[in-house]
Amino acid sequence: MAVSVTILHEARDGAVPRVLTVPAGTTILKAAHAAGIDITATCGGRGRCTSCRVKFVAGTVPPPTIMDEVQLGDNLVREAYRLACQCHLAESVTVQVAPPLDEQSFQILGAGSGAGLDRITLDSGVAKQVVKVALPREEHHQTSDVEALLAAVGLGPTRLPPSLLHALPGALREDPSGVTVTTFGGGIIAVERGDTSSMKFGLAIDIGTTSVVTTLIELDSAEQLASVSSLNSQAVFGGDLMSRIAFAQFNPLNLRKLHTRIIGLLNQHIAEVCRESGVLAKWIYKVVVVGNTCMHHILLNVDPTYVGLAPYAPVMRHALTLPARDLSLKVAPEARVCLLPIVAGFVGADAVGVALATRIYESPEVRIAVDIGTNGEVILGSRERLWACSAPAGPALEGAQIRHGMRGALGAIDRVSVDDDIHALTIGEGPALGICGSGVIDLLAGLLDAGVIDRTGLIQVEGRDALPPRLRERVGMRGEERQVIVLRVGEAGARQEIILTQDDVRQVQLAKGAIASGIAMLQRVSGTPAGRVAELMLAGGFGNYLSIASAQRIGLIPPLPRDRVRYVGNAASLGAQLCLLSEAERARTESIAERIEHISLATHPDFEQVFVESMDFPAAR
Amino acid sequence: MAVSVTILHEARDGAVPRVLTVPAGTTILKAAHAAGIDITATCGGRGRCTSCRVKFVAGTVPPPTIMDEVQLGDNLVREAYRLACQCHLAESVTVQVAPPLDEQSFQILGAGSGAGLDRITLDSGVAKQVVKVALPREEHHQTSDVEALLAAVGLGPTRLPPSLLHALPGALREDPSGVTVTTFGGGIIAVERGDTSSMKFGLAIDIGTTSVVTTLIELDSAEQLASVSSLNSQAVFGGDLMSRIAFAQFNPLNLRKLHTRIIGLLNQHIAEVCRESGVLAKWIYKVVVVGNTCMHHILLNVDPTYVGLAPYAPVMRHALTLPARDLSLKVAPEARVCLLPIVAGFVGADAVGVALATRIYESPEVRIAVDIGTNGEVILGSRERLWACSAPAGPALEGAQIRHGMRGALGAIDRVSVDDDIHALTIGEGPALGICGSGVIDLLAGLLDAGVIDRTGLIQVEGRDALPPRLRERVGMRGEERQVIVLRVGEAGARQEIILTQDDVRQVQLAKGAIASGIAMLQRVSGTPAGRVAELMLAGGFGNYLSIASAQRIGLIPPLPRDRVRYVGNAASLGAQLCLLSEAERARTESIAERIEHISLATHPDFEQVFVESMDFPAAR
Repeated sequence: MAVSVTILHEARDGAVPRVLTVPAGTTILKAAHAAGIDITATCGGRGRCTSCRVKFVAGTVPPPTIMDEVQLGDNLVREAYRLACQCHLAESVTVQVAPPLDEQSFQILGAGSGAGLDRITLDSGVAKQVVKVALPREEHHQTSDVEALLAAVGLGPTRLPPSLLHALPGALREDPSGVTVTTFGGGIIAVERGDTSSMKFGLAIDIGTTSVVTTLIELDSAEQLASVSSLNSQAVFGGDLMSRIAFAQFNPLNLRKLHTRIIGLLNQHIAEVCRESGVLAKWIYKVVVVGNTCMHHILLNVDPTYVGLAPYAPVMRHALTLPARDLSLKVAPEARVCLLPIVAGFVGADAVGVALATRIYESPEVRIAVDIGTNGEVILGSRERLWACSAPAGPALEGAQIRHGMRGALGAIDRVSVDDDIHALTIGEGPALGICGSGVIDLLAGLLDAGVIDRTGLIQVEGRDALPPRLRERVGMRGEERQVIVLRVGEAGARQEIILTQDDVRQVQLAKGAIASGIAMLQRVSGTPAGRVAELMLAGGFGNYLSIASAQRIGLIPPLPRDRVRYVGNAASLGAQLCLLSEAERARTESIAERIEHISLATHPDFEQVFVESMDFPAAR
Repeated sequence: MAVSVTILHEARDGAVPRVLTVPAGTTILKAAHAAGIDITATCGGRGRCTSCRVKFVAGTVPPPTIMDEVQLGDNLVREAYRLACQCHLAESVTVQVAPPLDEQSFQILGAGSGAGLDRITLDSGVAKQVVKVALPREEHHQTSDVEALLAAVGLGPTRLPPSLLHALPGALREDPSGVTVTTFGGGIIAVERGDTSSMKFGLAIDIGTTSVVTTLIELDSAEQLASVSSLNSQAVFGGDLMSRIAFAQFNPLNLRKLHTRIIGLLNQHIAEVCRESGVLAKWIYKVVVVGNTCMHHILLNVDPTYVGLAPYAPVMRHALTLPARDLSLKVAPEARVCLLPIVAGFVGADAVGVALATRIYESPEVRIAVDIGTNGEVILGSRERLWACSAPAGPALEGAQIRHGMRGALGAIDRVSVDDDIHALTIGEGPALGICGSGVIDLLAGLLDAGVIDRTGLIQVEGRDALPPRLRERVGMRGEERQVIVLRVGEAGARQEIILTQDDVRQVQLAKGAIASGIAMLQRVSGTPAGRVAELMLAGGFGNYLSIASAQRIGLIPPLPRDRVRYVGNAASLGAQLCLLSEAERARTESIAERIEHISLATHPDFEQVFVESMDFPAAR
């Protein structure tokens, strides 16, 4: 049985409706493509993205498939949107092709504008073209497969890496639709059989001391297809940088262990984002990595020993681009892995990513960007001048080295309020498994206000009688240890008790002391009183919720007016994403890294005093 | 006890004798170096080369050490030469430093000159310098190890491969004498602790279908330190190219097997030349490889399937330089492996090497270069124009696929004469183990003249009564097989009988037919009668002895006057050596490869007739 489908395509100026007659059961996408109508299908028509969505304007709207529900969500499904690749035509209908995704721009954090978000032009540098290569037919010819291919693509003779030669002869001859050639930076990085031109993906990777985040992005639409984060598996060899460097120094084989761990973890991440999105790893052609200097060096299997010894010299600082096979990353073998430049031993490519994403480098007024992390950084400045220092907070604010700490994942307590008792909310609203960074900050802010801990951080076991009864019952000693019971078994569905120990409080004090003193020192060095700070941007992998009020209450950041403080998310990772999507942005990191002036706090005569003062909590408001 | 040594140094103009007083037992080399007297010690003073030799002119000449005898030989030892590095001073003496080796030139085969040998200027492109890198001492610095190193060497920021970063920080800090930086092509390819500037070696590798030859050369002196040759271990998968290509086609894993075999063999060769010479493999920084197209492709792990199918297209033809680590060659990891360009599917980089070494490309008159090999080539031309064709002789002339054939190694019969009996000489003059290519050619020439085989190649068992008695007794049938007994057990110390079979004769006929018809066809295509051929240069791995008279007698090469035929040795390997020692020569191969016009014999209408005629032996002179 034949059915007809009428396709309206508003995006094409002056296009008239096209009426196609096809056998019943054909998908709308196939019908359109067969008729030469251009509907974007980023995932290849496998229900893995939203790019082919159409809106039914006449005829019966078919019931949504599971893919429609997953990809489009309830609202679009109710508005009669469906995925063209999933919709098999049963009767004659009229559909409107959705306007293509805004493919030419990508949101960035705007430090300079009040609006908060700017847009960049997409230009990943990765280009694909389908070519049919004319091979010689007569024996007197004097040419070769490579020459024929390069002539078809229009490139010079040495722009093809030898590793791509292996399968080239078969690819050129065995698919009548030709080959798809991928280029980057003027060279060929992949040759694939048939037409794979719509498959073009990249990864933004943020390697932190404690956490690693990998994000898979479709390069032409900037669509984020999947993102995974996990603990850095090197942590078994030392929670902070110095202990990891010491481990690497101890035995030359240890560096290899650290290197192998991170490569293995990244390959797990790659497998996971590919599984989630349905993207094949061989379609990933560009990878941008940010990380602190030590993580960067270990990723390259470069000895970080001297990064950990005064004068803390990095082995290299320049931006680096190398083929993925050199790092054994399981994406396209010649995919380009781009490492952003480094400023100094403890101000790494992650800080450059933060500076890029926050646009602090073009701000007309002085701003501060604070990247909270085990090896965090503070950047202060404007388009005139930029200073940076390291703020080695340790892993406490990422939920590590805290008794019941955990990353901001399902089951983590991420919001806490304290009145006459402690109230906790978990991510996913299920039973609590532990407490993450934003939860710890909330908790301490609440306990300070309630008088459960004092300015020096001591849990007030002796003074607990002054507390409201329910709160009082949570505060006590267990053996030698002062502690606060955050959740008892059964409270909010918790299957285990979750407590905050005196040692946990000390860890947070060290962490926030490092950051607060970094901010204070940069203000001092640059001569910037609080009144001249136009904005403080708080960055880090806290997920969706971080209470700026709580962060100010515990003294993590200075008491600026609330409208001059903003949480900007994981800015380092966003910087990597910007560089993934735009070669112009990536080029910009070179000058940003050159402009940033590194301030070594340890050698500054005022530092020790400032640090000790920053360890205490602020007085109540 | 102190002794004095007076050092005369003629090589330095106007230098006066230097008298040094040193403790007894000091070597002459150490004494000289301590005093700043420059005696070349290529091998680092370990008795592994001859560069530091001195002649005793006053005082007692010490008895020669074992190293003196091995390196200098009887004659120089008798003339009072000793190695300065091996000679421990026992009393006061006067020595004359030998003139340095002629370090600025290297012999080449001159096609254009009557003299036969020209010289090139040495310029391997590999340069070493010792630098002391000033590292930052204060923590406010913003630099890195790489930047400090590149500043010391005077190179730009990205000229250091990431693989060299691994051990860089230690190298820069742990040896007070500094680091030695090796450069090639404007980039750094090695950084080593301490001063290794005198250690600079390279390999010339000729990968034939049947034989592989690896030569270790000191790059600044052109001194050949060691050379090994062996059968190509891929031969177990097929003796000729076509069977090896068929093997690769059969299963994709087979290509990997062939690739792994050749890499494994080259690494064995590398280990062997290093052991022989005392050179460390990490001091090998440049490798030049020649080979036919199929061997070239397999070395790169590139599918050779279509090289074996009409129209026999190579996958690539351009010259290629890649780091040794990409091929898993166990030399310096970033050593540059240079592959010469290719002309066509069956006229490979080996032919380009032959054209380079024979200087045929600049000859004012028409010359012919014939490279005998399993996949041999013929080149004909002058500075005006160059033609080439493949001459697939099979392995018979390399001693393979012959009943008692062997390579030209110790124990091989390499010279044969026939009068009223057969007389054989072996390499090394020991017991015969088999017969090599030059021996087979001699043998057939002698048997033709003696009437043991006729023009069609048939062994004359029936007509043997006309032969002299001793010769007659060597000719007969064994079962169905016609054969000639070359050596019986006990003759010339032979521990086994060595025979020539009818099938062996047929193999040689096929081989020489391929070559002779290639020569004839190029003469025909280019319109070059014998009278206009100024010289025929016969190349191949025959070792030291090939009888041109025998080669002409069996019709391997045409009957040109004797003074117009010359055996030029392994010209393909020599071409590789030239490119190893001179970047100007290597650059020249590009234009040579472009100039050579490939003639495809199989498609030429005259070829079949010419080939059949070439199979017969010429009539007696």
